[in-house]
Amino acid sequence: MRKLKKLVLLGTGLIGGSFSLALKRAKCVEHVVGVGRNPDNLARALELNVIDEASNDAASAVIDADLVLLSAPVGQMAVLLQQIAPHLPAHCIVSDAGSTKQDVCALYQQYLPQHLSRCVPGHPIAGSELSGAAAAQYGLYEGRRVVLTPLAESAPESIELLRSLWQACGAQVFEMSAAEHDGVFSAVSHVPHLLAFSYMNAVLDRHNAALCFDFAATGFRDFTRIAASHPEMWRDIALANKDAILLDLKANVAQLLALIDCIEHHDALGLNEQIVRASAARNQWGHRSRS
Amino acid sequence: MRKLKKLVLLGTGLIGGSFSLALKRAKCVEHVVGVGRNPDNLARALELNVIDEASNDAASAVIDADLVLLSAPVGQMAVLLQQIAPHLPAHCIVSDAGSTKQDVCALYQQYLPQHLSRCVPGHPIAGSELSGAAAAQYGLYEGRRVVLTPLAESAPESIELLRSLWQACGAQVFEMSAAEHDGVFSAVSHVPHLLAFSYMNAVLDRHNAALCFDFAATGFRDFTRIAASHPEMWRDIALANKDAILLDLKANVAQLLALIDCIEHHDALGLNEQIVRASAARNQWGHRSRS
Repeated sequence: MRKLKKLVLLGTGLIGGSFSLALKRAKCVEHVVGVGRNPDNLARALELNVIDEASNDAASAVIDADLVLLSAPVGQMAVLLQQIAPHLPAHCIVSDAGSTKQDVCALYQQYLPQHLSRCVPGHPIAGSELSGAAAAQYGLYEGRRVVLTPLAESAPESIELLRSLWQACGAQVFEMSAAEHDGVFSAVSHVPHLLAFSYMNAVLDRHNAALCFDFAATGFRDFTRIAASHPEMWRDIALANKDAILLDLKANVAQLLALIDCIEHHDALGLNEQIVRASAARNQWGHRSRS
Repeated sequence: MRKLKKLVLLGTGLIGGSFSLALKRAKCVEHVVGVGRNPDNLARALELNVIDEASNDAASAVIDADLVLLSAPVGQMAVLLQQIAPHLPAHCIVSDAGSTKQDVCALYQQYLPQHLSRCVPGHPIAGSELSGAAAAQYGLYEGRRVVLTPLAESAPESIELLRSLWQACGAQVFEMSAAEHDGVFSAVSHVPHLLAFSYMNAVLDRHNAALCFDFAATGFRDFTRIAASHPEMWRDIALANKDAILLDLKANVAQLLALIDCIEHHDALGLNEQIVRASAARNQWGHRSRS
């Protein structure tokens, strides 16, 4: 594999920082520049050797880059792409770590129309409720999955480079269409987060919310863990993957209304059927994934 | 504390068996009789010294009892109370370990109207995915919470006995009304289970459910862990605590509709407000409970 001379992270948090650490350990990169808006975070990233150089100017940072990873929240990507577009060297590969892909693919089309053969949208599946460069870990991507959703224009060698870099981080790499990606992750990631947020708000609205939280135990703890996630990021994801998420949220409302109907009519059989179906599927998933 | 001569467990599984073991270790009881429908389970309970005597006849077992604990599923309690009613000695305290309390309180009123000063409904918060006498543990209640929901008729000395016994098991004892109990546990336990079941069913209804489950990761794992729970038990709880659960389920539907509205209208501010509120509350809860 070709060794990268210069990697530029546009967004120097957990995701970009862990990519940098893993590539450094695998000796796949010589120099890493971290770009960000928060000087304290960048200083910490330098101190922890997550990056070799800090910058607050995306445009000048990419001038001699071999690879640019957009690892900022999806909401900032349009501005970042606009800033770097006039300065990108022709050979430079551009990828991202956005949790939604159709919207990011559209941004590449809009802002880098001359550069699409070098663009490879991606999504490393390694969320955490932690954030910031200080949370970056060498092993974050070990055994994790990375989904690439190449554009029609992405060159095979661009895709191959991304694939080999993520593999060097210890990840398994998959390819699917951006639309398929957004449907799957709406279902198994975005919607559970939104359900957990709205559940927490329903408890907060209760007259005895404090007493409820006092008696919340391990089931509550696990069910709501994702509700502690980064608000700005999830707001952006909800808006970016709007169509897929709305379909799934409405399907969840329909399921809840069916459950309410069973309980209101004391329909033990119908209730049993719904619970058995869900419980069997979760047990099967657990056995397969040993979770 | 008065030492019990004879404790009768109506239902000899994890909950009743662990109560027996803890009281034996604390030297609070001389003789424990386990009543149950499953002879193999009772034989195992004897063998493991969880109980000293086995019986399949609740009526004759309680004739000289000092304390009866109903530790069978809530669905069996009506029959058990009916069976023991004519045979209970006047001094014998009766309690239970049911996860719902208003329905159990009504059963005491219905079947033991002459005996209410000796009845003290309770709920030890110590679920587990394990069951049966073989799963009973000495330390199950160490540091756990037990909620007592006394009847208006419960005598102070009856409540005091239950309190001291659960404390001898290592538990912290709380008192609240049955209605308050059912509201709190609907909010923090029953409804999360039902949300997890209905979420699983929404994923199962997707055309690409198998692919979705393939890419489900740690967020999904934690969020859905409670969906693997025992279907019959959760069906019974959903019906037993119907009123409180319906209120909370409808509040969750309302929250989801508000979220859908924000997303449909691309209301970033409104969405942000909802997510920030939920995330802040979960973080605060996590810091307090170190979870």
